[in-house]
Parts: sequence; structure tokens; C-alpha cells
Amino acid sequence: MLFQQQFLYAPGPTPVPERVQYAMNKPMIGHRSQEFPLLLEAAATRLKPIFGSDHPVTIIAASGTAALETAAANVLDENDDVTVIVTGAFGDRFASICETFGANVHRLEIEWGKTCSPDELRTFLQQTNKNMKAVIATYCETSTGVVNPVHELGKIVKEMTDALFIVDGVSCIGAVEVDMPRWHIDILASGSQKALMLPPGLAFIACSEQARKVIAETKTKRFYLDLNRYFSSYDNERSTPFTPAISLINGALEVCVMIEEEGLDNVIRRHQLLRSMLREGLKTLELPLLTNDQDASPTITAVMTTTDETKKLKKLLHEKYGLSIAGGQKKLKGEIVRIGHMGYSTPYHMLKMLNGMEMALTELTGSSVLGKGTAKAQEVWMQHV
Amino acid sequence: MLFQQQFLYAPGPTPVPERVQYAMNKPMIGHRSQEFPLLLEAAATRLKPIFGSDHPVTIIAASGTAALETAAANVLDENDDVTVIVTGAFGDRFASICETFGANVHRLEIEWGKTCSPDELRTFLQQTNKNMKAVIATYCETSTGVVNPVHELGKIVKEMTDALFIVDGVSCIGAVEVDMPRWHIDILASGSQKALMLPPGLAFIACSEQARKVIAETKTKRFYLDLNRYFSSYDNERSTPFTPAISLINGALEVCVMIEEEGLDNVIRRHQLLRSMLREGLKTLELPLLTNDQDASPTITAVMTTTDETKKLKKLLHEKYGLSIAGGQKKLKGEIVRIGHMGYSTPYHMLKMLNGMEMALTELTGSSVLGKGTAKAQEVWMQHV
Repeated sequence: MLFQQQFLYAPGPTPVPERVQYAMNKPMIGHRSQEFPLLLEAAATRLKPIFGSDHPVTIIAASGTAALETAAANVLDENDDVTVIVTGAFGDRFASICETFGANVHRLEIEWGKTCSPDELRTFLQQTNKNMKAVIATYCETSTGVVNPVHELGKIVKEMTDALFIVDGVSCIGAVEVDMPRWHIDILASGSQKALMLPPGLAFIACSEQARKVIAETKTKRFYLDLNRYFSSYDNERSTPFTPAISLINGALEVCVMIEEEGLDNVIRRHQLLRSMLREGLKTLELPLLTNDQDASPTITAVMTTTDETKKLKKLLHEKYGLSIAGGQKKLKGEIVRIGHMGYSTPYHMLKMLNGMEMALTELTGSSVLGKGTAKAQEVWMQHV
Repeated sequence: MLFQQQFLYAPGPTPVPERVQYAMNKPMIGHRSQEFPLLLEAAATRLKPIFGSDHPVTIIAASGTAALETAAANVLDENDDVTVIVTGAFGDRFASICETFGANVHRLEIEWGKTCSPDELRTFLQQTNKNMKAVIATYCETSTGVVNPVHELGKIVKEMTDALFIVDGVSCIGAVEVDMPRWHIDILASGSQKALMLPPGLAFIACSEQARKVIAETKTKRFYLDLNRYFSSYDNERSTPFTPAISLINGALEVCVMIEEEGLDNVIRRHQLLRSMLREGLKTLELPLLTNDQDASPTITAVMTTTDETKKLKKLLHEKYGLSIAGGQKKLKGEIVRIGHMGYSTPYHMLKMLNGMEMALTELTGSSVLGKGTAKAQEVWMQHV
């Protein structure tokens, strides 16, 4: 390959900016020291606009799945009815978590690659006709690269039920607009290793007032992921009930500073540009996309590997062109490849991906498409700036 | 611009690899400690193949110009005759340094953008007809992006004179082949901030046995840059006479490890590929190159800015497309731009530069060249791997 780097285009973990890495290298401090409360408050507070939350964001030393479990276990008691909108592997995982805690899970199954429309949710809630404790949606479904219209789904939830609206924001928070009060989101869960540009290891949970009331009453047995312990430790001492991942929190604070410096609106617009550049370039290369433009995530793009040649794309890109992308999961295994473009990603990263795709495709098919997708993506960029 | 990074394509300083940055973050140690001699010996020894030297490389806390001064001041006494081959601004600087120390400097002036041929040197030495103490050549002339044929020039020097052959290797060592004994090089000087992927701050000097003998006899007054002090401190204690730049030496050792891991031959081939990709891409974009293919450096490429549009390239690339390149120096000021491609640089960096050039040119001329240079460079890469 004549160079040693692999360039990471996984849908998470994503590249960690140098300055975040340096922030995580700060000397270790005790979490019962005087300094830690200042750090935790700074991070929890500066994450608020990123989560569109009125309240400080709770930070738990755990990975993204724990964030989902925290949302479920703190809200659902045995036999509670809960609707889970399943648009892919992570909606499915959220449903499994709810089942583990003994809830009556009503799965609103959507074809993978599509989003849940407000009408579909409305019809489902009417037909199910249960007193839902919660309705759960995935904002960006990592396995397919769609973004569900959570702002519209939240409205339906509030119109039709007294349920809490819980949103899995793992693979998009930090890259997309979100407004918990206006969008009627009660719990927004995310992880550190996606658009938030950190290594894996932090679970983030933002909660509404109403969610906190429900959480205080929930009987489901839990200890490490008991949000009441986190709320009371934060409210009383600006601390955590258990040992926090201090270096990752140093990194999270630096991420907040980076996003403030660029401007959250600009960060969001940048991700929209990345999506458009990559999609238009891939279309020009005649690679079929799993999702339509309307539903497409600004953080992840899935390409259907329908031919013998495109099934070899992932391996060739990795071994010869140093670009690491992801395959499909569960029912999409072998059917798609997924390209992450979130967090520490620039328009040049999209051109680089297209550069590599073009060389790999040219090699696989014997017919040159060099520069073609690139030129289209350059056009999109130039129209945008 | 919608992203904050500037991508550095200066002909030095060049990007520092993350793992080198981390190595430089190691805790400070005393230079009179037990650990320091181990570090210095490891770095000085592992630099040997990179400098094509039979002897450990001397490391001085100073920048590249000090490396040139060290070579001059340790060899030349007042009124010594010295030939300096001047192929650009840095050959000119080397001549000025020699003049400062009172040597009789004979400048072999070559048109900027061209190299010195063996015949030109032969004729010059014949016509000058002096007992030269040294002949000085620039391996890669940073101001124009040529590589002089030092292996052939060295042969002429040895055939025709008793002079030491001194080579300025600042902007190429670490990216090109070099063999001091076979090529008759007596002193090879370089700096840390170019192909060696370090921040500025280290001067490197490799010396032959014959050079050491001359250096021992030289009367020119010098203290900090007196190589005899460095030799004796290294030989006796594996140490330095004055406080060394410890963190940079930690970094230098890591650079040696990186080059060993990739393989020096592969590193050299990679730089040749970078040169070919960039040059072929730029030619496709109809940008005139300052040098011919034969003389072109694998580390720096100079583009002539002959039109009103191309004179705006550097500023537009910097402000809108986040690519930092350099302008011309001295008599080439305003006439060229220079693109560095050495050290921590991959084929994708060349594609990125062409991507940006294409967008800037398209914007400046109103005529689209999107994807065109890129496609050509992709072809070159694919033929190479």
C-alpha cells in the first residue's frame, strides 16, 4: 500500500481529534477532589445545547448500549406497555432491552432502510390501543443510515398518549439539530464514540422534568445505571455516584469547546454537506444507495452491494487503499456497506472516500470511473460554500 | 469553509504524526541522568541508515540553518577556498554563511529551477583552479524543488580535488536515497522539520572520518556549534556538551521506529509516487511546473503562477479550501507556489491537493476542471501499487 495509516470511516468509533486526545492526556485527578466537580459541571452544562436539553446531561462510564438500557430500566416496570419503533438493528436492540426488563413490548416494525412516518405511528398507537408508558424511537438508525422524523413523531406521542418519548441519539447527536422541549423528547440517550468524536466509554442521558418524575417512581431493580443516584450526586455535589471516566470527561469538555468554536449550526450544516457530497458522488458512480435522499442520515451512508464486484469493495478498500468502512448487520449482512461521516470529518474526507471508491471500482470492473464521483462531489461542495 | 482544520502542505514544517507527538509528551528527564545516554545513542544510531552514514548522527538543539553553519564553521578557516553550488535560495544562504566566516567563496550559479550537472561542476573546478577546502551542494533545493545529482557531483569532487564534499540535505533526508561513503559525502546536514516529520528544533550532522580529521584542525572560532565538543561528549559519555532538546530527541527516535516499520525503501518509493501523482495531476490541469521530471524532487513541487488566475491560487486555497501551500522566495517571489509532500504524507494527500486545486481553478477561471487532475493521479497510483 506504500503507507501505513488506515483511514477510519466506520459508523463509530470515529476519529478522535488531536486536541481531544491531548485533553484526555491531562494528569489524572481524584473524583472526590475539589477539581472534579468543576470539570463535571462544565461538561454536563456545555453538552446541553448539543442535546437540545434544558437540563445538564448525565454522564455515565459505560458504552452506548448502556445509555439505551439506562433509559429503559429507569422508566419501565414489569408489564408496562411500551412501543418501540424498529427501523433497523438498533431499534431491534432497544426492543430486546425492554423485553429483558419484562415490559410488554409493542414493536412497530418498519422496512429496514425506511423511516417511520408520523401516520404509521399514529395508526399503530390507535390499533394497539394501550396505555403506553413510553414510546421509543431511533433518531439515526446506525444499521441503515436513516434519520427518523423524531420532531414529528414526538408530536404524535404527546397528542395520543401520556407516554414518555425516548430517543436513541447514539449515532447522530453532535451532528444534527435536536430540541428536547419543542420536540417533546423526554429522554435522549447517546454515546461518546460517534459524532461526539470521543473514544467509546461514555454514555450520555438527557432527561426532561417529566422523565425525572417517572424515573423517581420506577421499581425496576438497578444499581449502576440507576439515574436517581446520578441526579442526586450531581445536584448535591456536582459529582457521580460511582467512579467516573475522568479522562474521557476531559475529552468531552474539549469536544464541547470545539463545537462551540465552530458553531453548532455550522457543525450541523457541515454534516449535511458531507451527506450530499458523498451521496451525489456515489450516485454518479452508479452505486445504489439503501435510503432515499429524504430519509438519509447526515452521519452514515449505506451503499447496496448488489453485484459480485461491489461485494469485494470493502475488502479491497481496506487492504489496498487504506479506507476502513463497515459491512451490513443482521438482515443486511453482505447486502450493504456503511460509510460513517460524522464528527471529525471534513468535505475532503468525502472526496478521499470517493477517490478510493473510484480506484477500487475501476480495478474491480475494468472500466475507469476515475475522478467522476469526485468531480460531482466537488460541484456540490462549491455550490454550498 | 465549514471546517476548521488547515491542511499543511508547506515545504516544512510538515505535519507531525500523532505517535511522534505522543513520544514527545513523555515525562522530562535530566540530560545528565542515566536514561539520557540510552536515548541519545538509540536516536543517533538509528538515524544512520536514514543518513546513509557509517557513523552515529550528531544531534544539535538548533534549526536547519545551524546545521549548515555547523558544517561551514567546522571546516572552513579564513581565506579557505570553497565552491558553493547555488541552485536556489538555500544554496545562496550556504554561500553567505561561508562568506560570514571569511572563506573565499566561489559560487557556481545555476539557473533557478535547474540542477547542477557533473559537467558544469567539472568545468567550474577546472576554470577556478584553486585548492578547494570544500565543495558544497544542496541535495534538494527547497526554493525550487529540484534534487541535484549529488552522487555524481561527489565523484567529480573526489576525482578533481582534495576537498570535503558537504551536502545540505535539509528538505529531503528521510525521503530519498543517500549513501555517504559510496557517494563521497563528507558532511551531510539536515533539520528535523521536513521529511523527518518532527517540529523544528533539531539540527542533524553526519560526518565521515576524513571530515572529523579536518574538523579537529579547523581554527574558526565557534562554541555552541563546535562539532569537536559534540564528538567528544558522544564518544565518552553518549551525551551532548550543552542541554539537548530532549523531547524532540524522543520524537526523533519514534520517527526512526516508524521509518523502520514502513521500511526505508518503501518510504523512498512512496515519496517517488507522491511526486509522480502530483506532477501528472498538475500537468493535466495545465499548470506549468518549474522543473522538469528528471530534476524534480520527491518532496517539493513548484508550480509557476504565470496567469492572473494562478497568482490567486495560494490565497484561495488557504481561505476557502483549507490547504496551506507556500509562495516563492527571493527571485521567484510571486512567480511560483510550492507544495510540500514529504514525511507524514500519503497518496491521498496528493489527491486532496489536486481536489482543492481543481475547485480553486474552476472558481478562478470559470471553466470546470473538477476531477480531471485527480483522475490522472489516481491512474498513476493504480499503476504503481
